[in-house]
Amino acid sequence: MPITANNPNKKTWVNTPDNTDFPIQNIPFGVFLTRDDIITIGTRIGDTAIDLGAMHQLGYFEDIPLTDDIFLQDTLNDFISDGKKTWRLVRNRISEVFDIKNGTLQNNEDHKSIILFAMNEIEMQLPVQIGDYTDFYSSREHATNVGTMFRDPENALMPNWLHIPVGYHGRSSTIIPSGVPIHRPMGQTFPKGAEKPVFGPSKLVDFELEMAFITTDANSIGEPIPINDAEDYIFGMVLFNDWSARDIQKWEYVPLGPFLAKNFASSISPWIVTLDALEPFRTKGPDQDPKPLPYLAQNGDHSFDIQLELDIVTDKGISTTVSKSNFQYMYWTMAQQLTHHTVNGCKVNSGDMMGSGTISGPTPDSYGSMLELAWQGTRPVPLNDGSERKFIQDADTVVIRGFCKDKGHRIGFGKVSTKLLPAFESKNKK
Amino acid sequence: MPITANNPNKKTWVNTPDNTDFPIQNIPFGVFLTRDDIITIGTRIGDTAIDLGAMHQLGYFEDIPLTDDIFLQDTLNDFISDGKKTWRLVRNRISEVFDIKNGTLQNNEDHKSIILFAMNEIEMQLPVQIGDYTDFYSSREHATNVGTMFRDPENALMPNWLHIPVGYHGRSSTIIPSGVPIHRPMGQTFPKGAEKPVFGPSKLVDFELEMAFITTDANSIGEPIPINDAEDYIFGMVLFNDWSARDIQKWEYVPLGPFLAKNFASSISPWIVTLDALEPFRTKGPDQDPKPLPYLAQNGDHSFDIQLELDIVTDKGISTTVSKSNFQYMYWTMAQQLTHHTVNGCKVNSGDMMGSGTISGPTPDSYGSMLELAWQGTRPVPLNDGSERKFIQDADTVVIRGFCKDKGHRIGFGKVSTKLLPAFESKNKK
Repeated sequence: MPITANNPNKKTWVNTPDNTDFPIQNIPFGVFLTRDDIITIGTRIGDTAIDLGAMHQLGYFEDIPLTDDIFLQDTLNDFISDGKKTWRLVRNRISEVFDIKNGTLQNNEDHKSIILFAMNEIEMQLPVQIGDYTDFYSSREHATNVGTMFRDPENALMPNWLHIPVGYHGRSSTIIPSGVPIHRPMGQTFPKGAEKPVFGPSKLVDFELEMAFITTDANSIGEPIPINDAEDYIFGMVLFNDWSARDIQKWEYVPLGPFLAKNFASSISPWIVTLDALEPFRTKGPDQDPKPLPYLAQNGDHSFDIQLELDIVTDKGISTTVSKSNFQYMYWTMAQQLTHHTVNGCKVNSGDMMGSGTISGPTPDSYGSMLELAWQGTRPVPLNDGSERKFIQDADTVVIRGFCKDKGHRIGFGKVSTKLLPAFESKNKK
Repeated sequence: MPITANNPNKKTWVNTPDNTDFPIQNIPFGVFLTRDDIITIGTRIGDTAIDLGAMHQLGYFEDIPLTDDIFLQDTLNDFISDGKKTWRLVRNRISEVFDIKNGTLQNNEDHKSIILFAMNEIEMQLPVQIGDYTDFYSSREHATNVGTMFRDPENALMPNWLHIPVGYHGRSSTIIPSGVPIHRPMGQTFPKGAEKPVFGPSKLVDFELEMAFITTDANSIGEPIPINDAEDYIFGMVLFNDWSARDIQKWEYVPLGPFLAKNFASSISPWIVTLDALEPFRTKGPDQDPKPLPYLAQNGDHSFDIQLELDIVTDKGISTTVSKSNFQYMYWTMAQQLTHHTVNGCKVNSGDMMGSGTISGPTPDSYGSMLELAWQGTRPVPLNDGSERKFIQDADTVVIRGFCKDKGHRIGFGKVSTKLLPAFESKNKK
């Protein structure tokens, strides 16, 4: 079935600012609270939010096999469960309804008053209930930087790294949408020169510039997903900030991996951009040498050219772009990650989320964490207000943006923006 | 509120076999399919399953604040969310209704025909929807054994181990109830002497003898749970077999921890035994030296004397008990695990599960994994059919049982029993 929604020449009757992340060719999916405090599933064109629950009730999805309440839910999980064909039918239909040549909704003021909202009237929610969240570690530059700093510059990559999309399980319960502030985590650390561990607020709070993909129900327990089918089970992508406390991480992570250093908060952008919408920006990732084992072998283009930028915004609102990276730097593809994840029969459900790992590029201004940008605090990063940062300070806001761009065509993710508040004051202490 | 359900002198009118795990003092909670294929929440006395949904509809929980459908659900999550006071009221009431001195239900044949089932008429399900699953590594003997084998016998424990209840995130989607068979996982390994990694069925499939606890909603994101409150947020416990593929684990686990070596399957016993029911078996765990940091410091008895046994049953049904351990060997308590887990503000939800880690005791016959029992294959374990095992073979069934016992009183968990099938045959290959 063709993805008619991707037609680059299509224009919409909805007012869309120049250079918007959300032209009619995007049509992402999200969940929001309307001005009437009703939760619904929706999409967005320009700065207009579109209530898909209302559209469905008013008959705009006629002939598409959808249950009556599919969009009247507080998560996208059931819709994602409907599968790729349904996602495509719905996205194509939305594109038709908002086509400038289509007068049906365009000329129906009653319907428009029910279906359309200004973005500033709504409140974005977490788009999916995330059952399981996995984070990979798939940027060669990031793994090399970390290995150089903490282990041996001559053998920076672990022996398994070029053979396996290395990953680990993360915590679903503390994944939050853009806009929700977080607290500096308390925890146990072992400062240099100390004789025993100490307890207190982390002193080395960091971001990780990542993206993540959201899956549909992919398999039964025991059943692997073949590499050539894997992309069919990926619904779409979001921007992802995998907050990390480096001092807690250093003390806790051997031998079982990061735990409290990561699970205090992870933030995502609220609009899921479908893999279909990203199709025009498909590209090849880095060459893989040695060749992956056959179960991970792929031909063709399986990465995406997604430009990424990360800003630190100070309490006074002064913004500095400290990193510019690109999703295509990832060594392992999403399909390889998903196939590897299930090769042992691990079950993947609708709404599961898989993070890329920090996306660092080849140059120092493309590194995806403060750990790398300031090289363990040895090269503080200058900000536009004259201050500098080794790690993130209380009241800083970290903003990640991402977008694809060619001649006349921009498909974006919006942003994930998260403010770091001081450590939580326990009620007991008051 | 007193736990009247624990009265050791209480007798029931339900026929209960001698030495049952489920006397009227137990009253665990589970989810089952009835003979009419209806899913309900229930409890068990002896070999009789009790439909709590039907009991509630027939008025037996009058005056207890419960929603009408609280037991007519396919998971215990909402009931667990109701909190400790409600769990206790319900358990006390069940104990009253089934007291031999109470004729109300005892003499009502119509009601009994609706509420009571023979255990062989029902099919146990997973009792909770597990949002997040964490596994700890809290047996000193196990950590010492593993450290001795894989690292340095002189420094077997990692420097952080005596200061932190070390843990990592596991995969919720492949947690299964007792009785569901699993497949030997496929995966990538790096055999000794090989020049590059290979792909195939794991050759070193192992069990891990564990227990796990199930939590209620404990906190908001950002908010730690103080150590003295932690036990109030633990609903109950199950037996837990954390299946592990040692060859996959060895190749993949550095630096981010176990991943595909564990997430192919983890099995639990289907009845959750409440912490209230275990109260009479409270005991002290091992001395903790060095003293834990203040946020983890506890006085009093915070472990439980739970005897554990693990059998390997061959395809022909010959059973051998290969390990006898005890939950009280755990160095870190459940309260310390939960408090540590949330000290950074990590949110804990109703139905989350936290595993103990392999529970090994001080003697070789109390080790909790084949890795330790057969000491990396160097001391094969003899079975009662004359064969021996270094690891688990296809068609073996692994059975864990657990129970508390004093003079006239036994509170048990039943069992978790899981058969290992050969590696999954992909449809593509046929």
